[in-house]
Amino acid sequence: MIDKTVHMGLLLDFYGQLLTEKQRLYFALYHQDDLSLGEIAEQYGITRQAVYDIIRRSENILLDLEAKLGLEKRYAKQREKLETVQTRLEALAEGQLGEITGRAADELMALEQLIAEVIQEF
Amino acid sequence: MIDKTVHMGLLLDFYGQLLTEKQRLYFALYHQDDLSLGEIAEQYGITRQAVYDIIRRSENILLDLEAKLGLEKRYAKQREKLETVQTRLEALAEGQLGEITGRAADELMALEQLIAEVIQEF
Repeated sequence: MIDKTVHMGLLLDFYGQLLTEKQRLYFALYHQDDLSLGEIAEQYGITRQAVYDIIRRSENILLDLEAKLGLEKRYAKQREKLETVQTRLEALAEGQLGEITGRAADELMALEQLIAEVIQEF
Repeated sequence: MIDKTVHMGLLLDFYGQLLTEKQRLYFALYHQDDLSLGEIAEQYGITRQAVYDIIRRSENILLDLEAKLGLEKRYAKQREKLETVQTRLEALAEGQLGEITGRAADELMALEQLIAEVIQEF
């Protein structure tokens, strides 16, 4: 079970450019910066209800996009596999399955680094 | 420079669920199955112009989504890196950087296979 803040952050990361600027802003203030509806309302001089409606609408748009395109799910699966590869490369480089030395060991560490970069960029 | 059919196929793969069923169908017939506008028109009993309009509109929707979300670009970059990892794992397994035998060699081949699966699933 993925944490709600992380979940909403990933949805915003994947699909946020399809929201309006205002939707993206209020959504991020609420779900990422942890401001309350009241705090956002005060800061932007609108009613708490209006803030609530905009955030709720944004959530629905993002959840609908995920239901249709499934990017979060798709890439969670891939990230998991790549993390497995990373762990196993590390075990190899550490010689847990037989001694590997010199250039081959360096190469394994370089590959582990490359996989880490790909995971980072998801 | 990526081939136009491949490019359109990737866009359809990433964002096709945001098109209507009809848009998706005509787009695929034209760009993937290589039917002509006239052939599609005849098959579905509508004008060639109507087919053209639907396909053009679908292209615009998909290109706009790619401009905003950039998934094709993002994953082309990652695919490239993973293919590099794959090639280098292969070189390692073949002992090009020093002899690797037994369980370590098997493990390298297994990891190569895992990376291939991730690439396949993009």
